[in-house]
Amino acid sequence: MNATLQTRLANLRARMAATATDLVVIGPSSHMLYMADLSPHGDERPVLLMISQSFAGFLMPALNVDSARQHTDLPFFPWADADGPAAALAELIAATGIDRTAPSIVLDETMRADFALLVLDTLPGASRRFTNDTVGYLRSRKDAAEYDALKKSAVLNDAAMAAGFAALRPGITEREVATVIRDFYKANGATTEFCSVCFGPNGAFPHHHTGETRLAEGDAVLIDTGARIYGYPSDMTRVGFYGTAPEGFGQIHSILDRAVEAAIAAARPGTPASAVDKAARDVITAAGYGPNFLHRTGHGLGIDIHETPYITATSDTVLEEGMVFSIEPGIYLQGRFGLRLEEIVIIRNGVAEILSDMPRSAVAVG
Amino acid sequence: MNATLQTRLANLRARMAATATDLVVIGPSSHMLYMADLSPHGDERPVLLMISQSFAGFLMPALNVDSARQHTDLPFFPWADADGPAAALAELIAATGIDRTAPSIVLDETMRADFALLVLDTLPGASRRFTNDTVGYLRSRKDAAEYDALKKSAVLNDAAMAAGFAALRPGITEREVATVIRDFYKANGATTEFCSVCFGPNGAFPHHHTGETRLAEGDAVLIDTGARIYGYPSDMTRVGFYGTAPEGFGQIHSILDRAVEAAIAAARPGTPASAVDKAARDVITAAGYGPNFLHRTGHGLGIDIHETPYITATSDTVLEEGMVFSIEPGIYLQGRFGLRLEEIVIIRNGVAEILSDMPRSAVAVG
Repeated sequence: MNATLQTRLANLRARMAATATDLVVIGPSSHMLYMADLSPHGDERPVLLMISQSFAGFLMPALNVDSARQHTDLPFFPWADADGPAAALAELIAATGIDRTAPSIVLDETMRADFALLVLDTLPGASRRFTNDTVGYLRSRKDAAEYDALKKSAVLNDAAMAAGFAALRPGITEREVATVIRDFYKANGATTEFCSVCFGPNGAFPHHHTGETRLAEGDAVLIDTGARIYGYPSDMTRVGFYGTAPEGFGQIHSILDRAVEAAIAAARPGTPASAVDKAARDVITAAGYGPNFLHRTGHGLGIDIHETPYITATSDTVLEEGMVFSIEPGIYLQGRFGLRLEEIVIIRNGVAEILSDMPRSAVAVG
Repeated sequence: MNATLQTRLANLRARMAATATDLVVIGPSSHMLYMADLSPHGDERPVLLMISQSFAGFLMPALNVDSARQHTDLPFFPWADADGPAAALAELIAATGIDRTAPSIVLDETMRADFALLVLDTLPGASRRFTNDTVGYLRSRKDAAEYDALKKSAVLNDAAMAAGFAALRPGITEREVATVIRDFYKANGATTEFCSVCFGPNGAFPHHHTGETRLAEGDAVLIDTGARIYGYPSDMTRVGFYGTAPEGFGQIHSILDRAVEAAIAAARPGTPASAVDKAARDVITAAGYGPNFLHRTGHGLGIDIHETPYITATSDTVLEEGMVFSIEPGIYLQGRFGLRLEEIVIIRNGVAEILSDMPRSAVAVG
């Protein structure tokens, strides 16, 4: 176990003590990658990492033991297909040293339901919650190496976004523009995480599927794209138009830009995440578009594209140094267009620093 | 809802009646695709399809409503980020008409743990099990259209496998061979599901990660690969060698070929899946290699690469017409080589029909 992983394990045990947690149970997920640098074959065979104050080890399908051993020196409790996992799981729980009567356990919220219920059925007296104040909390506060990777990923994404807008011409399809961006990622050693290109009224669907719609004069264009490089993803949205901007475009763009600025100004260590949501939402509501801002203001970004902290009206997260998240207000006008502007920021040296170097101004093409 | 989906819903309700199930709860998964032709954006926002005898509808994040509506006409119970899903979930459960006191519910075993526990916390009196005798059972018995798609996918995979073996030359890396196969899939309109290429001793790890190992004279070669086309995947393993076969190769290959034949002969409607596992295992055990056959004999194949029925020693599945699964015995000799032969079969007209047209003979190259 290298120094980074040893630090993370020690930090987790400190959080477990602070939150009176006896046992953390992690499935094959980003949580496992973060804690143990292991990203096992994810299928229906239970793989679980269990961490107590005195022990850390894996429930592991026998046929994965050899390949997993190349990534971690933590002990394995292997189980064969012919036997099923029950006996190995009982041994692992015994090794953790927890009191089985009424342990306080944390479950990886992303693991499969059958994995989680296997654990809960084996520990019927357990009280349980999810990882947000343990592993999720640790992951939300990025270290220097993570900041560096996220920054490099964001700057590469700036160039990919520019390539996407540069490809716009009448008649090109959304999918063809997405292919330009995906090819750019690939040529630069990154892997596409997602790429959403919306022309005209399609932008009014926040989760529009990029398709065969062709670009026409007067269309608004929305591109929301991200890729992974150095192990960390990017995520950015920019908007523009082809030829003449549709009616109201400039006004909506300006409202969103002010909403982003207001949220960034609000984002400080010690500020509730809900206050950042409110800062963006207030600008849009004051402009009369509150009902058209259909979603939360943002989500954390790290190993996962969506992770803690979530920037919502109901969040109880308080921002801290090192937290990385999106600020992405949008206004969706059915039948006309939808716009969204998205920055990824990190709370650093007491302020919200934007990772991208690309201006948020509308990209006018044609 | 088209005729196929209407038939599936009626079939599910018949299975629910036969198994005294009040409610089936499905997350964003292959189960949802099968039942409702919907494959929603999978993130941390709960999306659930609930089916009772009298009702079927979705818990749906508000921002996914518009795009999801293009795929299904079932009712939605939308929830906004600002509100969370609790109220919409309560309304959906009320609409299902079930008695909330002690319902018998089926949970999609693949859904996220937090989705499943949201349901269980909302229905604290529920008894629960997973989908294997409801949705999983229906999915395991393929209809004519599914057979046709699986057959076409298998035959395409035969050609991809041939292309992979044809690319072998001294010094080529495992990854380069995998790229040949992946490119073949792409050029033929298929998408790679997985592609494992193992040279020499790497084959002794059943879940070896394809890497930079270079092919040398006398190496055994194992290729396990599959792709998706027409919505359905393929999955096949073949073995060969470069130059001279390593010592013992021919004997091990012959044992595995007989194990496959024995399993195919055992696979009939009415036979337990465990008897198919035993038929393959007995051949290998009799030859003295029982401890080197590290895994189950097979897994179902349909929308998912791994699904019901599982061909294991402990399975309680009885085979029926229309079931599709792999038969893939392997023998792994640490430090030397590992071989596996894998066929996908369908129980059809009373026998196990192999989908591939490619012989299982060892491919001699060089």
